[in-house]
Amino acid sequence: MESGISPRVKVQRHAERGNYDPGVIHAILDEAFICHVGFVVDGRPVVLPTIHARIGDDLYVHGAAANAMIGACDGQPVCVEVSLLDGLVLARSVYNHSLNYRSVVVFGEAREVRDEQEKLRALTALVEHVLPGRSQGSREPSPSELLITRVLRIPISEASAKVRQGQVSDAEKDMDLPYWAGIVPLRIVADEPEPDPALAPGIPEPDNVRPERVMARAAHRP
Amino acid sequence: MESGISPRVKVQRHAERGNYDPGVIHAILDEAFICHVGFVVDGRPVVLPTIHARIGDDLYVHGAAANAMIGACDGQPVCVEVSLLDGLVLARSVYNHSLNYRSVVVFGEAREVRDEQEKLRALTALVEHVLPGRSQGSREPSPSELLITRVLRIPISEASAKVRQGQVSDAEKDMDLPYWAGIVPLRIVADEPEPDPALAPGIPEPDNVRPERVMARAAHRP
Repeated sequence: MESGISPRVKVQRHAERGNYDPGVIHAILDEAFICHVGFVVDGRPVVLPTIHARIGDDLYVHGAAANAMIGACDGQPVCVEVSLLDGLVLARSVYNHSLNYRSVVVFGEAREVRDEQEKLRALTALVEHVLPGRSQGSREPSPSELLITRVLRIPISEASAKVRQGQVSDAEKDMDLPYWAGIVPLRIVADEPEPDPALAPGIPEPDNVRPERVMARAAHRP
Repeated sequence: MESGISPRVKVQRHAERGNYDPGVIHAILDEAFICHVGFVVDGRPVVLPTIHARIGDDLYVHGAAANAMIGACDGQPVCVEVSLLDGLVLARSVYNHSLNYRSVVVFGEAREVRDEQEKLRALTALVEHVLPGRSQGSREPSPSELLITRVLRIPISEASAKVRQGQVSDAEKDMDLPYWAGIVPLRIVADEPEPDPALAPGIPEPDNVRPERVMARAAHRP
């Protein structure tokens, strides 16, 4: 992570919401289930959602061998964005309505991972990102599965977080308007696991699929 | 909405998950609180999260007058992506792990809205998108607020949805492996509204901020 803040990642609008602390950036990346990868094809922007995983200062995404995103991104600049939505901010004025959120934008050059060991580490990290412990609770990729899977590494070389928290912020002149104002918190919850109906008898439900463990997963990453 | 499917939006990977029905595409756009806008600056991709609203076959996003996104997008091709996360798909093999989701990708040329009436309609739609009824429960934008706000219209001219639902899909040879398999449903919930501590006494809490109404908001859009 560079210690300087590049103009590209500097938060312009609501600069007070900008945060360049790697700890803050990493925590948001780790908590978000999915990311949004932006890349350029024939001069035009494309954004696709996908799972990501972080190992140190690198992000990894993966796709099938024929995946258009992977081919278009290898060796090219990409932008990876994640957002966690924390609430609705309902102000007295339409103008001051907002959301509470924690978001990160990462700029970096993507490179396909060709080293077998790094590729396996990245695929393990992708499964662990979604659910810690799951790589030990499922069959590892076979050589043929590895062949038809491609992995991209994106160094978190330029990144910024943007965070809005707390209550509404109305203008002084609006404070006496006869409108309700406040926030409505939002969060993701996991519900009761639904076992595959074809599950062989006698296979116990692992602890890590319990709803409370799924929701606390960012705190349990290796 | 074009009736033909352009190559750009045709779902390549897991083509069976592709859906080009405007009704399906609109429903996903309407349910998602935020979107991810991709655009190109100096040949490089940028992705930023923001609120969107749909009126018919047009999407609208907004920003402050000095907003870098708005300036960079006016007259340019953009890509707007939204994703709804519905669950973890935990297969017997690492390879068949997946997520249940509903996502949409829209390609179109963004244009700044300069007509005052359309701009006001779009800003109203943006507030109504987040919470139906809220535009009547807050002060409308003043002329000076309208001046410092810019709105982009993006026609939903090329769009596709991609949807994965249901249980795990493991290979026949993996069905007897000693691993638990199943899905963990995920959803967004709203919690109890938190009124602004500065709220004037006697202002009642409106029905539309109740958690159950917030979660059902996509069904209540005008």
